[in-house]
Amino acid sequence: MVDEAVDHLDQVRERPVWRPMPDSVRAKFQSALPEDPTPLEQVYNEYRETVGAYPMGNIHPRFWGWYMGSSNFTGALSDFLAAVEGSNLGGGNTGAAQVEQQVVDWLKEIAGFPKNASGTLTSGGSMANLVAHTVIRNLAAGYDVRKEGIAALKAPLRFYASDQVHSCHQKALETLGLGSKALVEVASDNSQRMRLDALEAAIKEDRASGLQPACVIGTAGTTNTGAIDDLTGIADLCEREGIWFHVDGCIGGVLRLARDHAHLVAGIERAGSVAIDPHKWLHTPFEAGAILIKDPDAHFATFEMHGPYLQLQERGMIAGKFLADYGLELSRGFRALKIWMAFKEQGAAKFGRLIAQDIALARYMAEQIEAHPLLELIAPVDLNIVCFRHLASDEDAAKALNTEIMLRIQERGLAVPSDTTVQGKHGLRCAFNNHRTQIEDIDEFLRDVMQIAEEILLEQSE
Amino acid sequence: MVDEAVDHLDQVRERPVWRPMPDSVRAKFQSALPEDPTPLEQVYNEYRETVGAYPMGNIHPRFWGWYMGSSNFTGALSDFLAAVEGSNLGGGNTGAAQVEQQVVDWLKEIAGFPKNASGTLTSGGSMANLVAHTVIRNLAAGYDVRKEGIAALKAPLRFYASDQVHSCHQKALETLGLGSKALVEVASDNSQRMRLDALEAAIKEDRASGLQPACVIGTAGTTNTGAIDDLTGIADLCEREGIWFHVDGCIGGVLRLARDHAHLVAGIERAGSVAIDPHKWLHTPFEAGAILIKDPDAHFATFEMHGPYLQLQERGMIAGKFLADYGLELSRGFRALKIWMAFKEQGAAKFGRLIAQDIALARYMAEQIEAHPLLELIAPVDLNIVCFRHLASDEDAAKALNTEIMLRIQERGLAVPSDTTVQGKHGLRCAFNNHRTQIEDIDEFLRDVMQIAEEILLEQSE
Ligand SMILES: Cc1ncc(COP(=O)(O)O)c(C=O)c1O
Ligand SMILES: Cc1ncc(COP(=O)(O)O)c(C=O)c1O
Repeated sequence: MVDEAVDHLDQVRERPVWRPMPDSVRAKFQSALPEDPTPLEQVYNEYRETVGAYPMGNIHPRFWGWYMGSSNFTGALSDFLAAVEGSNLGGGNTGAAQVEQQVVDWLKEIAGFPKNASGTLTSGGSMANLVAHTVIRNLAAGYDVRKEGIAALKAPLRFYASDQVHSCHQKALETLGLGSKALVEVASDNSQRMRLDALEAAIKEDRASGLQPACVIGTAGTTNTGAIDDLTGIADLCEREGIWFHVDGCIGGVLRLARDHAHLVAGIERAGSVAIDPHKWLHTPFEAGAILIKDPDAHFATFEMHGPYLQLQERGMIAGKFLADYGLELSRGFRALKIWMAFKEQGAAKFGRLIAQDIALARYMAEQIEAHPLLELIAPVDLNIVCFRHLASDEDAAKALNTEIMLRIQERGLAVPSDTTVQGKHGLRCAFNNHRTQIEDIDEFLRDVMQIAEEILLEQSE
Repeated sequence: MVDEAVDHLDQVRERPVWRPMPDSVRAKFQSALPEDPTPLEQVYNEYRETVGAYPMGNIHPRFWGWYMGSSNFTGALSDFLAAVEGSNLGGGNTGAAQVEQQVVDWLKEIAGFPKNASGTLTSGGSMANLVAHTVIRNLAAGYDVRKEGIAALKAPLRFYASDQVHSCHQKALETLGLGSKALVEVASDNSQRMRLDALEAAIKEDRASGLQPACVIGTAGTTNTGAIDDLTGIADLCEREGIWFHVDGCIGGVLRLARDHAHLVAGIERAGSVAIDPHKWLHTPFEAGAILIKDPDAHFATFEMHGPYLQLQERGMIAGKFLADYGLELSRGFRALKIWMAFKEQGAAKFGRLIAQDIALARYMAEQIEAHPLLELIAPVDLNIVCFRHLASDEDAAKALNTEIMLRIQERGLAVPSDTTVQGKHGLRCAFNNHRTQIEDIDEFLRDVMQIAEEILLEQSE
């Protein structure tokens, strides 16, 4: 199995990035719970034929859809080791708990957070942001909100973010009972960065209407275009206004690893909390997110909980810090190990070089597009995301053409771009977050785009 | 690595269950983020010496603390395979997504839920219950609570559960903004089952005070003692009263796999939702939880969300159901694979036999304790959890003595029991959820308990 996995990764470039699943294969997943055993080898064969043969494709050098990491082999070995030992990271006086705390410490170093900040690993960015917003909500309430709930809030809370903010923030505020109207989407400028004047005006207006500004969310790398908000400007404003500053650094939170690009996230170290997603730019196999919080007492006060069956001791297996006191989950897997082993094996400098390489790839692609008469960028390329489209007669035609280009490219296994809309313009989107991608992959992809566009336009004219 | 893992599991019985970590090892976890690479072999050696050597111990046949699964090797291989492919289970037209849906279908079969129920895998029971309570809250509100938040609730919501309910329900209601006071803890009887008369009275009283009963939580296997609420009685009551019936089946939700014990959870199939924790009694390596919900529309309406960069298509990579529309997470790992492969390899019947075996072990231990003049059970043993203690002169002495017994047993690596308090009596607690445990392990443990008790009492009398 391990040998095959190594070959599988070696040969990834030869395979289609993605391919549709035939109905005959799909039908197999309808079978009922198997009552009787089957030899493992046979199960593994079935895995290869029905599951492994129809992957998402995000380990392929030409997968650039949405925002995925492209995994790594040491991470896979770590997941194996973690599962062999079966450790539960809810707490406990174990080596695994130490590893998790060390990984959190390393992430603090990366984000420029002080050693005494608290933090925890989560399943991903959505949960990391939810954990932060829970702490921020409870702090802002200023009474025993854990007991009383938010019905007793003196003034409705407001969280501010740019209109490019990731949808998980809306989901988080809905979950917390504050409602999506608690998320004030501030207009972004032509570079998709939050407009600070609009932010300031929104805060002022809300205060005047008796609402309570609780938090400004700065995004360090938006999902849509990779835009990075003016974190220093937001930090200044939050300090002036006495508002919590949270950074969604799911994409760009590790940017300081790449020395030449660290200036892009200047100010991140001034945030009260930052969400980081190792399963994105650290290529950790899914899942691994993280949240860092500068107020460890508020963090603990939000989540601390011990049933009669879970009392801490000074000695024995359950001595020490209880990790579940810092998040929503009690039992947790040992996801820290895959981050720990990869950092040790590769060194942080290498991760920095890979980040720089992805940014260089995006810039290369942007240049090719700008130089091409039939292609246009629909957003500036500041980071590792390229949004562009093939020109067409009008908006509707452009949307139809570019969607069809995307689908055919995916269906033929040539590449996996995704699509998006930026300031009303619909187009394709390539997020470079993939240590296997090379310049040639981009050239080939753009040739494919042009050829398929021609093919579609020809069909339409027939 | 794989060979060593096999040996490691083969020899698990020869090792101490747990051992304290020396300060010299602990200090190693203070080192800063490594800048430079290290050969993988050396990293692995470090893992073995500082992490693997100080495990939680829950794969050991004499680990019975809290409520852990004891993992399984096929699950570990599955986690490896999942990470090699790196699939993101947020959605996508992939084999992995099919596996997840099939596993959810199998869990519906196990719980007696209809095929058209919805469901999703979560990181664990805490998240599974949180997902359910979010759906229930939004349904009960009866207006656009996602937008408006819960401030607009006509009447405060109330969730009912026995006083033995797991603390994650309180955490969930706090998170949802309802406050812990929204959780009404109904008195349990001498078998730690929710008293239905008390439940009925609480609902009546709350209605009279203008509160809105939203949900009754029945527990199928409490964490503390393994008590199973009268699920049929609760189902009847919920039907009469028009209240949502949720079952926390994190422990007992898979009990129907064991034919002879299925009657214990009669009524579970009538619930509106049930939380199941494969990383408990299905021995799935951490993490894997699941939630099943009988109202798929309400489930979808609670979590459905698509940013501009995440629009569904009829074809291509992102066709089909979007799994993130059924929970709080967007990116998710491929945790379904380890459940799928283990069920295929072992067959469901074997899991049923292992459950029956754990229950038999608990009953054996209970008999030994009842027959022993110096030991007493502090709760009835209906399932796989044994709560007992060594007698002492009074409550304080009993707590001190039994705590010290537990700590010494842990520190010497003999076994890992945990402790708890049942109806004011403090004692030790052994949860059998471990396919490696044998009768002899229990005999040996009870001998250790008696010997250490003697040792402590002797020290005290000196
Ligand atoms: C900026 C940003 N925040 C949050 C998230 C959500 O992270 P996850 O998918 O890990 O839940 C994403 C995911 O793409 C993101 O790009
Ligand atoms: C009855 C019950 N519900 C919920 C939970 C929480 O599950 P998890 O630890 O997977 O979050 C547990 C854990 O022990 C439990 O026993």
